[in-house]
Amino acid sequence: MAAGLKPSGKSDLALIVCDAPDPVMVKGAGHPIEARRSAAAVFTRNAVVGAPVEIGRRWRAGAARGGDAGALRAVLVNAGTANAATGEQGVRDAEACMRAVAGALGCRAEEVLPSSTGVIGPRLPVEKIVEAVPRLAAQLGRGEEADSAAARSIMTTDLVPKSAHREVELFGHKVHIGAIAKGSGMIAPRLDSAGAPPLPQATMLAFITTDAAISHRALQRALESSSRESFDRISVDAHPSCSDTVIAMASGAVAMPVLHEDMPEHHGFRAALQSLCEELAEQIVHDGEGASRTFRVTVRGARSVEEAERMARAVVDSPLVKCAVHGKDPNWGRIVTAAGNAGVWFDASAASLSIGGVEVFHRGVPTGVDKADQRLRGAMSGDRVEMVLTVGNGEASAWMIGCDLSAEYVRINAEYTT
Amino acid sequence: MAAGLKPSGKSDLALIVCDAPDPVMVKGAGHPIEARRSAAAVFTRNAVVGAPVEIGRRWRAGAARGGDAGALRAVLVNAGTANAATGEQGVRDAEACMRAVAGALGCRAEEVLPSSTGVIGPRLPVEKIVEAVPRLAAQLGRGEEADSAAARSIMTTDLVPKSAHREVELFGHKVHIGAIAKGSGMIAPRLDSAGAPPLPQATMLAFITTDAAISHRALQRALESSSRESFDRISVDAHPSCSDTVIAMASGAVAMPVLHEDMPEHHGFRAALQSLCEELAEQIVHDGEGASRTFRVTVRGARSVEEAERMARAVVDSPLVKCAVHGKDPNWGRIVTAAGNAGVWFDASAASLSIGGVEVFHRGVPTGVDKADQRLRGAMSGDRVEMVLTVGNGEASAWMIGCDLSAEYVRINAEYTT
Repeated sequence: MAAGLKPSGKSDLALIVCDAPDPVMVKGAGHPIEARRSAAAVFTRNAVVGAPVEIGRRWRAGAARGGDAGALRAVLVNAGTANAATGEQGVRDAEACMRAVAGALGCRAEEVLPSSTGVIGPRLPVEKIVEAVPRLAAQLGRGEEADSAAARSIMTTDLVPKSAHREVELFGHKVHIGAIAKGSGMIAPRLDSAGAPPLPQATMLAFITTDAAISHRALQRALESSSRESFDRISVDAHPSCSDTVIAMASGAVAMPVLHEDMPEHHGFRAALQSLCEELAEQIVHDGEGASRTFRVTVRGARSVEEAERMARAVVDSPLVKCAVHGKDPNWGRIVTAAGNAGVWFDASAASLSIGGVEVFHRGVPTGVDKADQRLRGAMSGDRVEMVLTVGNGEASAWMIGCDLSAEYVRINAEYTT
Repeated sequence: MAAGLKPSGKSDLALIVCDAPDPVMVKGAGHPIEARRSAAAVFTRNAVVGAPVEIGRRWRAGAARGGDAGALRAVLVNAGTANAATGEQGVRDAEACMRAVAGALGCRAEEVLPSSTGVIGPRLPVEKIVEAVPRLAAQLGRGEEADSAAARSIMTTDLVPKSAHREVELFGHKVHIGAIAKGSGMIAPRLDSAGAPPLPQATMLAFITTDAAISHRALQRALESSSRESFDRISVDAHPSCSDTVIAMASGAVAMPVLHEDMPEHHGFRAALQSLCEELAEQIVHDGEGASRTFRVTVRGARSVEEAERMARAVVDSPLVKCAVHGKDPNWGRIVTAAGNAGVWFDASAASLSIGGVEVFHRGVPTGVDKADQRLRGAMSGDRVEMVLTVGNGEASAWMIGCDLSAEYVRINAEYTT
């Protein structure tokens, strides 16, 4: 709904609720009666975080201490104001909103998480939100229309709403996973894991719901590994936000045994979740601010996945490479030297590079393919440019997806106060 | 001179010669007769380097092994072609040019260093250069006019030629230091030191001459420490080139004792050199591709200079901060979150930020200064925006200077093949 948080008057407040079914008796699974609902979350590794991330981390720490007890009833998401760099007042403001949601849904405030995106610095318009929440709770819906309305209300500079869905069969039951997300600017998520210290990362928000019955720990682990291979692999502008958040809520509505990390079925769930996260991540980078095309950089032959990722990240984040992609210019020298700036040593004379399957640099020397070559021109002109850099350091590989840098990006960000 | 290397037909080849005076007898300095000429160099830390950097590093390693014997007679600089990613052929091409210079000057090829900037990949047009060198050597000049002609011939996308001069008194003698430089794009130099492994970083070239008598080691140390506090502190686009090079040549023409590292006078020389390097660095970032203004980010209260520099670098390299500077938008949330992405932890609630002396964020909360505030608007509109971020980690501080990101930068780099 529109609660008056965006100056444009567009939709700006969403409530995502995880319905709690009655406890289900499951026989023969070794877990006859247990908590059916659970939730998990990963957040930005920025050293500066918004109040919602502070509250989310606190919730997660409690969930981890409580073993498999971590569950959420709802997430309240607003666009327009990030509630970041607002100090203790920001936490109190968010808590007031959580209490309003708890009141409307008849649950505890601790079962609600806030999430905010928008301008950094201003206080959350608490009164507007608290006043809007009962109306928002009264108009909760299901299905595509509700999904789409929620996805729209969390948009900032996004041009299109983002959502994805998956189905996976577990224990003979069909399980559904659905999600909405937003991205656009300040996008270079590097999400944390439950035990990791805060470090580098963009405002990207994603909210995932599933009817699976899964333990907190199993959901948390699946979310962490899926995020690493999806959200962490995109970058619009190398500037991670203070608000990046992915929250997953599982209702346990499917009458399946509660899924634990050590069960073989966990792999199936994780694969479906990762596939969904990959689709969302691609939607986000495709809709990056000012972007007209995306490019994937795959680094092969690295000593470790981490080194491969650092090299790929240095390429997707290079303004010079991004401008070359914008201009459809197969300017491969920029690609090779960008990788050379990742802080990872490699022998240029053992390095090769191909663009769209056309090798332009082979073991340290140009192959002589002309930049006017038809195949090369074609590869640079598509919606997705594929670059593969092979070095001779080892066997590991990793990819990153970035987008071009356009005059439109500059226009958006020279005029917009984040 | 114009040797036909730039498609524009503009001046593209420069020869910088260090005249060798006859050995001078100096009394009472503890160093009565010794080598009067010396040279020093620092290069990019990119893992991928051009042939001229390979040759330069080899020269430097030899100079270090030979104690204080490192000297150069000349540097031949061309623009238009970087002679990078050209494999062994690139080294052979550069060596052919060095031999041509040696022949024209009557010195050994090992006393000549090459330096190249321009497009990565293509071979050096050796025949054109070899043919041009005798004419170039015949028209060697002195003074401002020659300086300016040389500074122009090494330009790529630079709009203005860059040079600086200093005088310093040592042992009662007036010593001169002069330099030319070029920059513009692929500028984020992080120069190496004689013993350091190759690591991150832009094409920036600077050539320094002095009539001081100084040992190789003393000149090398002075150049390394000066570079760290000047060239390493600027970034146009976060993309270090494979060709960044600073070469200093000392003729020993002044009848002073040869300056060694352990002499108190070394401080005076180093201070003059650093001041000169700072001026050149500022000229380079000011003329950054598409730049309309520069901004300095000073981080105070860090645990170490290195951590302060990483935080300041994360701010000057953030496309979002750069766009805000372009739009004269005091969007301080971007500044704080950019610093939060440097991989250095700090407590946001102990952090403060001022822009042009106006505090906008104090110990974790906004001060409430309106973005329309006159002083803030004024600070954002000048040629140089000053930002000071104070954190509570320690006592160390460092600064970095960056420039705004404009649609013009995108135009230049979407169309130009580096």
